Amino acid sequence: MRRIAVDDPDDPRLGDYVRLRETSLRRSLESEHGLFIAEGEKVIRRAVEAGYRPRSFLLAKRWLPGLAEVLERWPEVPVYVADEALAEQVTGFHVHRGALASLHRVERHTVGALLGARRLVVLEDVVDHTNVGAIIRAAAGLGWDGALLAPRAADPLYRRSIKVSMGAVFSLPWARLADWSGAIDLLREAGLQTVALTLADGAVDLTRFAAEVRAEPRRLAILLGTEGAGLSARWTAAADVRVRIGMHAGIDSLNVAAAAAVACYALNP
Amino acid sequence: MRRIAVDDPDDPRLGDYVRLRETSLRRSLESEHGLFIAEGEKVIRRAVEAGYRPRSFLLAKRWLPGLAEVLERWPEVPVYVADEALAEQVTGFHVHRGALASLHRVERHTVGALLGARRLVVLEDVVDHTNVGAIIRAAAGLGWDGALLAPRAADPLYRRSIKVSMGAVFSLPWARLADWSGAIDLLREAGLQTVALTLADGAVDLTRFAAEVRAEPRRLAILLGTEGAGLSARWTAAADVRVRIGMHAGIDSLNVAAAAAVACYALNP
Repeated sequence: MRRIAVDDPDDPRLGDYVRLRETSLRRSLESEHGLFIAEGEKVIRRAVEAGYRPRSFLLAKRWLPGLAEVLERWPEVPVYVADEALAEQVTGFHVHRGALASLHRVERHTVGALLGARRLVVLEDVVDHTNVGAIIRAAAGLGWDGALLAPRAADPLYRRSIKVSMGAVFSLPWARLADWSGAIDLLREAGLQTVALTLADGAVDLTRFAAEVRAEPRRLAILLGTEGAGLSARWTAAADVRVRIGMHAGIDSLNVAAAAAVACYALNP
Repeated sequence: MRRIAVDDPDDPRLGDYVRLRETSLRRSLESEHGLFIAEGEKVIRRAVEAGYRPRSFLLAKRWLPGLAEVLERWPEVPVYVADEALAEQVTGFHVHRGALASLHRVERHTVGALLGARRLVVLEDVVDHTNVGAIIRAAAGLGWDGALLAPRAADPLYRRSIKVSMGAVFSLPWARLADWSGAIDLLREAGLQTVALTLADGAVDLTRFAAEVRAEPRRLAILLGTEGAGLSARWTAAADVRVRIGMHAGIDSLNVAAAAAVACYALNP
């Protein structure tokens, strides 16, 4: 273990960890350097076990024993040991889970490989990291096989997505679609029935659709749209089926993560 | 309409709106003065339509026409008109929905009245405002009758809860339990079957339990525990039934709001 005590918040070796709350800064920094940040012992462990390779660790001293066996697997990777005040100065917030890791950002799955799945969630323009993390966690927990993300959907490896997903972004296979406009054709050609989750009148009720799927099993790709406006008109119209969750009491809709959990539960394989 | 131009961020008449991001400050300020804040034209309209009485409004000029008919219903209530920079100085963030209202905080429902419901969600120590808002929105949208909150559960009238709920906290009846320890007995004596949502081994699978409920209809109170640790041992043991959502792929659990949505869907009345 390359254990290195640090005491200067401007130490350039801590560059991976700066200003973790500044979304736009972090987005460009992480994509430029090909990295992402995992936070907390449990999540770091899951990232490493899933096969992501660490660039460095930033820990308070008291977290060393808990992560010892992870750190020993990567003897050449620097482990920066700082007190919590320093970590807060660097990252811009109180790191209450005490441990951070910077890992190499690699694409672990291809769109092509995912097209063989029985059950896919497809995120059109879900732009909120909390929602992306929660949807991936629900899909994984409810037995779905993977997620595809349209070009504008939020990053599953952003710190907030990882945290909300409790590390499910490491275990559920996912990949980024290169092309929004051709996505529905791609799914259909792969033999998946495309299901638009929508609030539109005239859509099939989810419970009824789930009964049809049980009666005639098939492979499904469920399409989830952006917060607020929902799925685009193009994807809604192009999908094989439009399905809605019945709403009561003058409530327009569920939050997209709640809707995804309900759909994944109702249509689980 | 009492329209009043304001241009001083320290104007004491704007005291209801200060530092909206500072949770602990806001909590004491709002309970001391018996107020809560609604944000955005749609949500303000829903609060007023639900019967909450405004104390004042704080708007950018361009939001006056959209809210005119709401403002005219309360001719004696001051409407502070400020530019967006001033609103940001007062509240501490960019008010991108442009309109804020301060309303009188009143208890609109009693625990006793809610005990007659067919379907209740009961939040033990759900402490995150986002989760409380999302759960209330899901319960309302999926046809449930109300929510009860244990003493330590987060406030449904906190700005973030209201926003995430899209105003469902105004339409779904809810009330605060005075006593955590006696809650399960209270529910049972009211003739509700108490259902602990848990990850414990030996719990009944949700899908199987839902089939039992369809076969033998009953009134249900579903108990949801705190983020992370879940329901307390006491409530889990005291409940009539323990139910779990089957998990796959090494995922421990769903987020509590996703779990609530799934349970409300599966057990809807």
